Amino acid sequence: MKPVRLAILGLGTVGGGVLQLLQENATEIKRRTGREIQITHVGTRRPRPDLNLEGIQQSDNLLEIVRQPDVDIVVELIGGLHPAKDIIIEAIKHGKQVVTANKALLAEHGNELFTLADQHVVQIAYEAAVAGGIPIIKVMREGLAANRINWLAGIINGTGNFILTEMREKGRPFEDVLKEAQELGYAEADPTFDVEGIDAAHKLTLLASIAFGIPLQFDKVYTEGISKITAQDVQYAEELGFRIKHLGIARRAEKGIELRVHPTLIPKEQPLANVNGVQNAIAVNASAVGQTMYYGPGAGGGPTASAAVADIIDLVRDISYTEDGSGTIPQLAFESLKDIPILPRQEITSGYYLRINVEDLTGVLADVTTILSHLGISIDAILQQPRLKNRIPIVIMTDPIVESKMDEAIAKIQALPATHGEVIRIRLESLEH
Amino acid sequence: MKPVRLAILGLGTVGGGVLQLLQENATEIKRRTGREIQITHVGTRRPRPDLNLEGIQQSDNLLEIVRQPDVDIVVELIGGLHPAKDIIIEAIKHGKQVVTANKALLAEHGNELFTLADQHVVQIAYEAAVAGGIPIIKVMREGLAANRINWLAGIINGTGNFILTEMREKGRPFEDVLKEAQELGYAEADPTFDVEGIDAAHKLTLLASIAFGIPLQFDKVYTEGISKITAQDVQYAEELGFRIKHLGIARRAEKGIELRVHPTLIPKEQPLANVNGVQNAIAVNASAVGQTMYYGPGAGGGPTASAAVADIIDLVRDISYTEDGSGTIPQLAFESLKDIPILPRQEITSGYYLRINVEDLTGVLADVTTILSHLGISIDAILQQPRLKNRIPIVIMTDPIVESKMDEAIAKIQALPATHGEVIRIRLESLEH
Repeated sequence: MKPVRLAILGLGTVGGGVLQLLQENATEIKRRTGREIQITHVGTRRPRPDLNLEGIQQSDNLLEIVRQPDVDIVVELIGGLHPAKDIIIEAIKHGKQVVTANKALLAEHGNELFTLADQHVVQIAYEAAVAGGIPIIKVMREGLAANRINWLAGIINGTGNFILTEMREKGRPFEDVLKEAQELGYAEADPTFDVEGIDAAHKLTLLASIAFGIPLQFDKVYTEGISKITAQDVQYAEELGFRIKHLGIARRAEKGIELRVHPTLIPKEQPLANVNGVQNAIAVNASAVGQTMYYGPGAGGGPTASAAVADIIDLVRDISYTEDGSGTIPQLAFESLKDIPILPRQEITSGYYLRINVEDLTGVLADVTTILSHLGISIDAILQQPRLKNRIPIVIMTDPIVESKMDEAIAKIQALPATHGEVIRIRLESLEH
Repeated sequence: MKPVRLAILGLGTVGGGVLQLLQENATEIKRRTGREIQITHVGTRRPRPDLNLEGIQQSDNLLEIVRQPDVDIVVELIGGLHPAKDIIIEAIKHGKQVVTANKALLAEHGNELFTLADQHVVQIAYEAAVAGGIPIIKVMREGLAANRINWLAGIINGTGNFILTEMREKGRPFEDVLKEAQELGYAEADPTFDVEGIDAAHKLTLLASIAFGIPLQFDKVYTEGISKITAQDVQYAEELGFRIKHLGIARRAEKGIELRVHPTLIPKEQPLANVNGVQNAIAVNASAVGQTMYYGPGAGGGPTASAAVADIIDLVRDISYTEDGSGTIPQLAFESLKDIPILPRQEITSGYYLRINVEDLTGVLADVTTILSHLGISIDAILQQPRLKNRIPIVIMTDPIVESKMDEAIAKIQALPATHGEVIRIRLESLEH
């Protein structure tokens, strides 16, 4: 059989990594596929004299590359929405298979792109778009295919997890650790995507779609970042037997699907609580298997290239063995998607950690507990804290309650004359059922 | 498309679980495959009035069932070598696809069976044979396909892990916990397969084959059980910052492949060290991605059925979409296997934990350290222990050394007049590189 021919678009850390991996492991990869993989084109503006590009055509005209007849698979690693979207559309229209790590593009325009790919009988493979080197797309789409997925919860942004780990281990404030993360190259100059949860929401959108067989709905993910978490809250959580993690959660509830990214208290003994630094991990609760967890590096050239090349190998096998190269597994895990409603934040049920700064007035704790009890919110724990200046922080953990009730409770507590500043609310999940 | 037709052989916990899972999740599974799955036959001797067997033919003549024309996939869940082997051979010769959880059969006769399957252009799928509900076969064979696997280390026997966890957490002796495990149904009446590492060696044989693309070589796995581990050693390990886990390890060394199952000290902070009770987990170190870990329930009806049904779904997709239903992925991960030598125990390098019971004689520690230093074995730590009766246990941790040297050292230490009883040796792995 003649080689399968590849165009790699973007020769940054990941694109360069894909090229090197295919070159270094060529023998072993050929033992797996039984067929040679040949890189015919690279699309890049920056020269990369450190890479071996012998016999490969280089150009910065990406649209032109994806139209070439000597390209079977297009590997899009330039990122961002534009011009990536137009390039992938052009590739699909020319009958090319597509591999991409572009979570933002798929989360925001995936419904359109996957439909177009189906029409042209090609695949868009996206293992590299979620959790780097952990093959979580394959696990969810195929490995757990026998199960009804109940929920998944993931640490799917390494930068955020690094920051929270440092805050906990060294008691450092958020801004301080963020600055270090930027110096270490873990965080971008504009850290919004990472610390405000947008990157995690992109990944969660993809995971939820293949978990439940629903269309991609990025705009319906409730998203809250970690920039308001204080070292104080991290410390209180610790004293209560919990860790604060920035989780992406997708859960099948009675009335619909919960889709949310926010800081979350989870019990210390949960495997996810012990995932530290830039590592990623996804826990999945499924009907037959129960709880499984997948752990590893979520970013970086090597891990992301590993995922992209695994997709390339799958495609090479599909091109070689299926009738039309279209592949045997539905792109979004299910042959037909179902429009299960995504619940608004107010209809989601969870436990809460509340931190309320009050003046040392007799009766204020009674006022707060009365407000909660009138709304049917039961208290699981109260942490007595030493006086900070003239204010006393009251820390309360509640049993699960629908969020609209909690909104009401917080508004009322906020209105008490003794309350100072904002009431801090962090959601809490036991991750047990 | 007409339904894909299934025969389930064996209606025990797992077989019954497969049947129920296919019935309960029929709608969701059909959304995934786009095709119906119909159970046409079950092979069982025991009646199962609790199961819904309406419209399914029952028989205890398994050889007859696998010859039926209305069977596309045979799901073998009777276990054991005989008659399972003959039944699978008959199924393959009749052109049936095979799904099995039979690790013993595949580890010991897999080379013959997989070759026969290739000749008849059918597949033997075996996700359920290793680590229950964790889709580790798929992860290794496809998800990490871009990588050269450096090593894997797994807690792949839940019974053994339950026993070691109880010994550590409650300071209980081995025999005591084993008895409880038997009462809880975690361990068989004859616990040899679990506690002596044979079950783990079967699974490791399969994992090593797909990690390195080598033939199945169960007889070359060095296998040591946990029955000699004492609560005392578990305690000493803890004081030194380690946990004792019963690991299956496959490692690519310079001269060949290490294949071994034995109790192992690993650093407490390693993710594997924190896998407790009957849970399984496999850590994989691979060239591009680095270290990833896969965690979940390794046994039980639900998890094992989840894996078997995932295989069934893969096969249904392959039957539907590939030209001949042969599938796109090589059964043992590689199109061609390589005969890399398996190293004998004596050529394997690791660190060691030694416990030596000596009389309180001046100079004995000097004798021991001299023996070690003459053989080029460096000491990493020595634990000073309080006197037990009239004997002092000396606990020594060494840096990595080839095992033939350690054999020599132990023989010499054993020959010292001050040494009492056997020198206890437990291997030690940092799991870092």
